[in-house]
Amino acid sequence: MLSFESDYTEGAHEKILEKLLETNREQLPGYGKDIYCQNAKEKIQALCHCENGEIAFLAGGTQTNATVIAALLHCSEGVIAASTGHISLHEAGAIESSGHKVLEIPGHCGKIKSKELRDFLQTFWSDQNRDHMVYPGMVYLSHPTEYGTLYGAKELQEISTLCRQYKIPLYLDGARLGYGLTAENTDVTLPLLASLCDVFYIGGTKVGALCGEAVVFTKNNMPKHFTNIVKQHGALLAKGRLLGIQFDCLFTDNLYFEISAHGNRMAKKLKEVFLKYGFSFYLESPTNQQFIILNNHQLEKLKKHVSFSFWERLKEQETVVRFATSWATKEEDIQALDSLLSTIL
Amino acid sequence: MLSFESDYTEGAHEKILEKLLETNREQLPGYGKDIYCQNAKEKIQALCHCENGEIAFLAGGTQTNATVIAALLHCSEGVIAASTGHISLHEAGAIESSGHKVLEIPGHCGKIKSKELRDFLQTFWSDQNRDHMVYPGMVYLSHPTEYGTLYGAKELQEISTLCRQYKIPLYLDGARLGYGLTAENTDVTLPLLASLCDVFYIGGTKVGALCGEAVVFTKNNMPKHFTNIVKQHGALLAKGRLLGIQFDCLFTDNLYFEISAHGNRMAKKLKEVFLKYGFSFYLESPTNQQFIILNNHQLEKLKKHVSFSFWERLKEQETVVRFATSWATKEEDIQALDSLLSTIL
Amino acid sequence: MLSFESDYTEGAHEKILEKLLETNREQLPGYGKDIYCQNAKEKIQALCHCENGEIAFLAGGTQTNATVIAALLHCSEGVIAASTGHISLHEAGAIESSGHKVLEIPGHCGKIKSKELRDFLQTFWSDQNRDHMVYPGMVYLSHPTEYGTLYGAKELQEISTLCRQYKIPLYLDGARLGYGLTAENTDVTLPLLASLCDVFYIGGTKVGALCGEAVVFTKNNMPKHFTNIVKQHGALLAKGRLLGIQFDCLFTDNLYFEISAHGNRMAKKLKEVFLKYGFSFYLESPTNQQFIILNNHQLEKLKKHVSFSFWERLKEQETVVRFATSWATKEEDIQALDSLLSTIL
Amino acid sequence: MLSFESDYTEGAHEKILEKLLETNREQLPGYGKDIYCQNAKEKIQALCHCENGEIAFLAGGTQTNATVIAALLHCSEGVIAASTGHISLHEAGAIESSGHKVLEIPGHCGKIKSKELRDFLQTFWSDQNRDHMVYPGMVYLSHPTEYGTLYGAKELQEISTLCRQYKIPLYLDGARLGYGLTAENTDVTLPLLASLCDVFYIGGTKVGALCGEAVVFTKNNMPKHFTNIVKQHGALLAKGRLLGIQFDCLFTDNLYFEISAHGNRMAKKLKEVFLKYGFSFYLESPTNQQFIILNNHQLEKLKKHVSFSFWERLKEQETVVRFATSWATKEEDIQALDSLLSTIL
Repeated sequence: MLSFESDYTEGAHEKILEKLLETNREQLPGYGKDIYCQNAKEKIQALCHCENGEIAFLAGGTQTNATVIAALLHCSEGVIAASTGHISLHEAGAIESSGHKVLEIPGHCGKIKSKELRDFLQTFWSDQNRDHMVYPGMVYLSHPTEYGTLYGAKELQEISTLCRQYKIPLYLDGARLGYGLTAENTDVTLPLLASLCDVFYIGGTKVGALCGEAVVFTKNNMPKHFTNIVKQHGALLAKGRLLGIQFDCLFTDNLYFEISAHGNRMAKKLKEVFLKYGFSFYLESPTNQQFIILNNHQLEKLKKHVSFSFWERLKEQETVVRFATSWATKEEDIQALDSLLSTIL
Repeated sequence: MLSFESDYTEGAHEKILEKLLETNREQLPGYGKDIYCQNAKEKIQALCHCENGEIAFLAGGTQTNATVIAALLHCSEGVIAASTGHISLHEAGAIESSGHKVLEIPGHCGKIKSKELRDFLQTFWSDQNRDHMVYPGMVYLSHPTEYGTLYGAKELQEISTLCRQYKIPLYLDGARLGYGLTAENTDVTLPLLASLCDVFYIGGTKVGALCGEAVVFTKNNMPKHFTNIVKQHGALLAKGRLLGIQFDCLFTDNLYFEISAHGNRMAKKLKEVFLKYGFSFYLESPTNQQFIILNNHQLEKLKKHVSFSFWERLKEQETVVRFATSWATKEEDIQALDSLLSTIL
Repeated sequence: MLSFESDYTEGAHEKILEKLLETNREQLPGYGKDIYCQNAKEKIQALCHCENGEIAFLAGGTQTNATVIAALLHCSEGVIAASTGHISLHEAGAIESSGHKVLEIPGHCGKIKSKELRDFLQTFWSDQNRDHMVYPGMVYLSHPTEYGTLYGAKELQEISTLCRQYKIPLYLDGARLGYGLTAENTDVTLPLLASLCDVFYIGGTKVGALCGEAVVFTKNNMPKHFTNIVKQHGALLAKGRLLGIQFDCLFTDNLYFEISAHGNRMAKKLKEVFLKYGFSFYLESPTNQQFIILNNHQLEKLKKHVSFSFWERLKEQETVVRFATSWATKEEDIQALDSLLSTIL
Repeated sequence: MLSFESDYTEGAHEKILEKLLETNREQLPGYGKDIYCQNAKEKIQALCHCENGEIAFLAGGTQTNATVIAALLHCSEGVIAASTGHISLHEAGAIESSGHKVLEIPGHCGKIKSKELRDFLQTFWSDQNRDHMVYPGMVYLSHPTEYGTLYGAKELQEISTLCRQYKIPLYLDGARLGYGLTAENTDVTLPLLASLCDVFYIGGTKVGALCGEAVVFTKNNMPKHFTNIVKQHGALLAKGRLLGIQFDCLFTDNLYFEISAHGNRMAKKLKEVFLKYGFSFYLESPTNQQFIILNNHQLEKLKKHVSFSFWERLKEQETVVRFATSWATKEEDIQALDSLLSTIL
């Protein structure tokens, strides 16, 4: 069956698998001390224009968020996030499980507004009872957001400025960063992120890797004993090579950006198909996740022929669903969707 | 350089990589709901003679231990382990980080003694202040232990009986289980483990997989919401296929057992080589980890030509080192070691 | 200076201090095993019409909430509360510090609505991704709320019914329960609470005790090893007599209810004074906390002569403040306030 | 019945109760911001010759240990303690519950040896796998120990020097500090503790208070947001006056030291009585806890007439029991014990 269910339904880009096979019998030290991890780090430093950037590779997004946030927060602190943020909603309480509150502020199509962030911080710091409250110790953004939307450079600049003013780190979750960096008209680049964020991660799992996320501490601010903290969170792979080789490969010959751009192109075509048949979109997404409004009739018919994700009920008769493209989506898939829509509607 | 540093210095058995490549473009559901995870589960159930066994795949050993232990313990409880156990010493406090104490009892070449376990439990339950103490809520064993040693069926039976008497689960960490199950003269089998343990895991990372451990709950006792707990611990891979495919492959055509037996054979040859040159062993290990006593002179000479692990200082002049073989060790490696020893000593 | 700052500005009701003095040299067992704790428990059981009620005494509200919630929740679960609830806002992240998320739903003058609770639970249980979310494992109410408001019996009944339907406990935080139970026109009684809640606590600190809260598990549902959990949370006083004697005293000769009713009477008079001078109230509170809207001019003038609590900024020119009466408020205090208002306005 | 069960079987020194009564109706700010807390802090600063000492009052020992340790440790760190330390054995896992391991080293009559501490630290820091281990982040001592024994100034000096060398704080649990400071021949004083420790607490609960411990940060090193951390641990009393008034009273006119010295004098007399009848002591304790070896016959006879604490079984026929005196022990109690022993033996 045709599937636009997510960007993690296939394995890995074939170049990655080939590299794994090619290097398979090399004897390498464990726990991320191998040459491929080193190579990947240097490539990321260069791409970020951040030669002192400190980089660590972890296996998945939730463990990365939990580890980084626990490592950076003081025990009196929580992390500010959009109420729709991944750490707020869909990480099974991993942040709280490490002892920290997620301080939710409104999400607007997945994004927080710097004005509301400022208000939150001002209100907190002027509250005489703040010793009875959770100190805001960090700001968490996802980019692209869980709704596929993107911050602009100016928005990030404003948020970053606020973080510096309040002396708290800015952390950006880039689980789908490739799709964000290669979106049309975006003015956000890796060097910009490295300059505005204190730490961010470059997602691999959803951008062509089997697994793996690359955390970048940009300000000489990797917390002390960070490898230990990664280990404590169960996030230190014995065969760290698995992550190093993948990221080394993704950042060779522009692969990461090419396959991300491909995912976005497929999303644009998918969008055009839906528009052609008169569908409405829940919001405007420039990346690989598209949110389409279906009425009950359409929902029932479509789900027999194509798989996608249920997102949320909008009204009694309408549902928001997500169609995701990826590095692995083929032109034929889009054409098949077009044919399908022309047939069943 | 020749390396006997660990059993995780190479990638994965080539059959696994081939299978990953072969299935790469199949569109599969995420988070362990794919057909390969299902196949692997059924094969494990059959091998364990445990058709109701509930199985989950996680990426690494520390995260498996932390997740299983947190999921099974009540908030008033800790886990009993040998003082040399992996959870006691080498998991960076992952168990305590989940809020639970590791209740250490003596390790004897890595093993606990049922008599000392009984004493510990009896003393605890007869202590009138036990409400001020940590309740023993589980017993943790590693098999093979961190010293390569093995429990016999009778020893496991005694420990299991004690656990049932005190109504606490028995958990066995099988990070290197393959080497244990295929050791010469062992009377411990998968069905025996399934019958004596409440939960155990079959290690993949150190037995030919890129990563991955298979947790088996044997008594219809998988904790409620276990997938959620795995997610909360950052241990739920989006591309669960990576684990399913590997274990499916490892449990096809006896691969897991063949490559483990190979590792043990190589260890036996390695042992013979060292014995030939008059070296002493710190203890008798029937599996792939061998602990050799080197004097300072030998240590200095050897480490220039072959890599291995420093284990512990024995006396001023003597050090225990670990040589590990694995599924990937080649006959030539053993021969090279023999030549080396004949040359440098 | 005249003070209506809180209900914990004085020490304890004198009968309590006398009883402490009278019993001072009795040699009593520690940790809550003394006869006064036993007496107090029996009196509470009788008042609740709950002869099997299991009761424990803790020193303060935050520790009580953290201990009870941690003891009752599974590691996959969080606690539903109003976004204005004490555990959501003013306990410094104590709940998250134990590893559990506070699942916030809207507060309406401090109260949650059963309709919104039902929607939350239905939405959660129909979400296919719920294994990636925090399971709702408990409902937390405060009564009186942080805004002095009260649930009616029918509202509590609806919430309790929902909790039973979803098989999660209902927990009621009664830090100021005395003022709630003796409010005019309330139809909520101790036996009703014992029947509808799975656990609740009767507040002492704010109702005439030096410190102390009495937790009542009403359904034979005290978690196993509860004393141990209390100890683990640092909430087990060595001299448990301090709590037992106070509650024994508070529940002798109706003292708890009399002094609470006095606090409410003083609040009513205070309200009349403010109304006489034309002030508006932020909301209608039938208990000892009154929320008054002051413009900036009034605020500046008043705070020179009387102390009260700043609550929240309403608009540029208006602020909500809290005046609290208590068991210790004297008629003269109200008269002094009246004089003050007549003078300075 | 005659009781030497513990030092918390009575209420509080009468001067404390009188002071509570005398100040009862004063309206004071909550949460430790009252004048009595302030007065008590100044008195403690003066006694410690530590005018910049930062002081906080908590209600009990376990909560104090858990709060201070969690506040000072980094998430990668654990606390070194004697295996017989209170935090190791008798706080129901409170330290682990905050996510930190207790790193146990041998206890010798309750004390750690600086030599063994040095070895532990050296071994850790020379271990190449230390990133997989728990970093030693603090040293915990109790003084008097759980066995009533005391460190000498020289021993404390050596331990303190090691802590500074390894840049980790030294924390001393003074639950029974009064008895330690007033023991015969001790050379440890409050100013010495303030100079050698980074933080310590002066116990109130077991030295004449109803409850309460005074934490002293001696090096301008109170962790940021400490009040918040205390609140998060449920250890911030609303009526902080309860603690302030008690410590103010204890440190007025030398009361704390006088009543402690009395407890020690009673212990000395108790010891003489036991010696007179030929009993052996398990160890030599200069403070208010005495550990006596009883054979089974003596144990059975004695426990019918006097209450004491069972400590540990020594051999089949012998048991160690604890007799504790306190500020509240009366000369007549010792005489009654003498008569009893003369009668029943």
